[in-house]
Amino acid sequence: MSPTDAQNLAVQRIEYAEAEQQTPCRPVKARQAEIEEDVLQRVIRSFDGCADPRLKRVMVSLVEHLHAFLRDVRLTEEEWGEAIKFLTAVGHITDDKRQEFILLSDTLGASMQTIAINNEAYKDATESTVWGPFFVEGSPEIQNGEDMSFGAAGQPCWVEGTVTDTEGNRLPGARIEVWEADADGLYDVQYADGRVAARAHLFADENGAYRFWGGTPTPYPIPYDGPVGKMLQAVGRSPYRASHLHFMVTAPGCRRLVTHIFVAGDDLLDKDSVFGVKESLIKDFVEQSAGTPTPDGRVVEGTWTRTRFDIVLAPTGS
Amino acid sequence: MSPTDAQNLAVQRIEYAEAEQQTPCRPVKARQAEIEEDVLQRVIRSFDGCADPRLKRVMVSLVEHLHAFLRDVRLTEEEWGEAIKFLTAVGHITDDKRQEFILLSDTLGASMQTIAINNEAYKDATESTVWGPFFVEGSPEIQNGEDMSFGAAGQPCWVEGTVTDTEGNRLPGARIEVWEADADGLYDVQYADGRVAARAHLFADENGAYRFWGGTPTPYPIPYDGPVGKMLQAVGRSPYRASHLHFMVTAPGCRRLVTHIFVAGDDLLDKDSVFGVKESLIKDFVEQSAGTPTPDGRVVEGTWTRTRFDIVLAPTGS
Ligand SMILES: [Fe+2]
Ligand SMILES: [Fe+2]
Repeated sequence: MSPTDAQNLAVQRIEYAEAEQQTPCRPVKARQAEIEEDVLQRVIRSFDGCADPRLKRVMVSLVEHLHAFLRDVRLTEEEWGEAIKFLTAVGHITDDKRQEFILLSDTLGASMQTIAINNEAYKDATESTVWGPFFVEGSPEIQNGEDMSFGAAGQPCWVEGTVTDTEGNRLPGARIEVWEADADGLYDVQYADGRVAARAHLFADENGAYRFWGGTPTPYPIPYDGPVGKMLQAVGRSPYRASHLHFMVTAPGCRRLVTHIFVAGDDLLDKDSVFGVKESLIKDFVEQSAGTPTPDGRVVEGTWTRTRFDIVLAPTGS
Repeated sequence: MSPTDAQNLAVQRIEYAEAEQQTPCRPVKARQAEIEEDVLQRVIRSFDGCADPRLKRVMVSLVEHLHAFLRDVRLTEEEWGEAIKFLTAVGHITDDKRQEFILLSDTLGASMQTIAINNEAYKDATESTVWGPFFVEGSPEIQNGEDMSFGAAGQPCWVEGTVTDTEGNRLPGARIEVWEADADGLYDVQYADGRVAARAHLFADENGAYRFWGGTPTPYPIPYDGPVGKMLQAVGRSPYRASHLHFMVTAPGCRRLVTHIFVAGDDLLDKDSVFGVKESLIKDFVEQSAGTPTPDGRVVEGTWTRTRFDIVLAPTGS
């Protein structure tokens, strides 16, 4: 065995913990609380020599909150063992094609909270939401009015709006990246055939306006065949995301906006598996009966929808 | 690509975050705080349907402390990306022979805190400490006075003591499991040759007393060639453990005791990498000059040490 061979033999300790009677939660005595506080303080002091003040602050805060969690719930040794097993499984399913730690962050709301922290509310700037795992660089460019679906299955949807700053100035040339799942709930990159579809970028016109054809958003589940899926099942949560269309919008002097728009009336709005929904991002996707003339004279077979999304960008550094 | 192929493309988002200017910490405005609190509350509500009340409590508390951490340090998107990369690396080095998640728990003091929580202070019962990763089941049995080192390199050490309950009653037949590193800082299971050495179990005699020969404990590092080692280096911490001898002691009607004894005067006592040291567990290992008669008449070449560890077990359920 290598010098580290025996490490996982430690999991045997769990069997002991399981066999042992667990005490129910009860008030923690002063002497016991002092002992626990002493453990925490020793851990905090271990970072005294950290030369990077930011790293030190992050580690000390992490340790404070981690220990507060352990003490609040009186985590049992058996539960600690389950947590180690869970994280190990998350690590093992993660490879260069699947990122279960991001799914874990997403489903615990940590991704959304990080987005909220780093994209502070500013005047009437459009709100941010999670990236989701399906953004890829190098999408095709389309002109205003063209179709970003590139053959992806779905009900056609006309999307239009303006891009302005928080002073109300139009932003001609703003770059708008859009991507979405097809009617089967899959992104192009989830197919094995290398297709590029339902993703594109375009630029706001000289009036700061944009318009394109896409597909009416449909719901899809995050990958749930791994440990995060098991966690969601254990706590009675759905892996489904509310229907949405992704946007990333950039313009000089403005904070980059990463967001989605959601579909008013979608059953999943209040149970989005990654907590991406914000009231201000819910839009009407108005269904048009077959034969209704389209804004650009395109001939559509069957029904289609249209929506409007006026985008407001906060200034850089706001 | 499989349905989940594109997941890790999400790491590309980090490049965006890195390119973006990070705002310095500053007071969080009321409207912003409300938005962040709303994210948290939505995550908490997502566990409303959890049928297992204990699981629900643990998850809600986890989420509360996790979000409090993110908000306290104003975690940047770049740091979030680093955390995902770190956890991914911890997952990938972990296999059936190496458990980096346990090392992570140990080095953040989470293992020691869990031990403290689950082994509450009770009267004068001996204090617990961490398991460490090198316990294995099925150690050889020795008789009182025999040598548990089985040829492991090291200075001989005579260990003796009693086992009693917290009422002062001796506990004949108490089972005492002991294990330790050799003079090279390695446990038997860290060698590739399958040796069994420096681990054994014995039973207290009819007077509740025990005695055995072992080796004087020496310091050793936890495995530090992985991401946890990199973390320790980044924060200026040593991977070394204070010198110690492991004990697990059990007797009918008593709480199982898992602990170590430490060596008085060891430089590493105040910087043990896994926070296992407790004042009450530091013992004098008194060095005996060459030729000093041994307690049992054994002939020892060179110096040896002796120590005393009187063990007090708390009652079951205390
Ligand atoms: Fe999405
Ligand atoms: Fe050890």
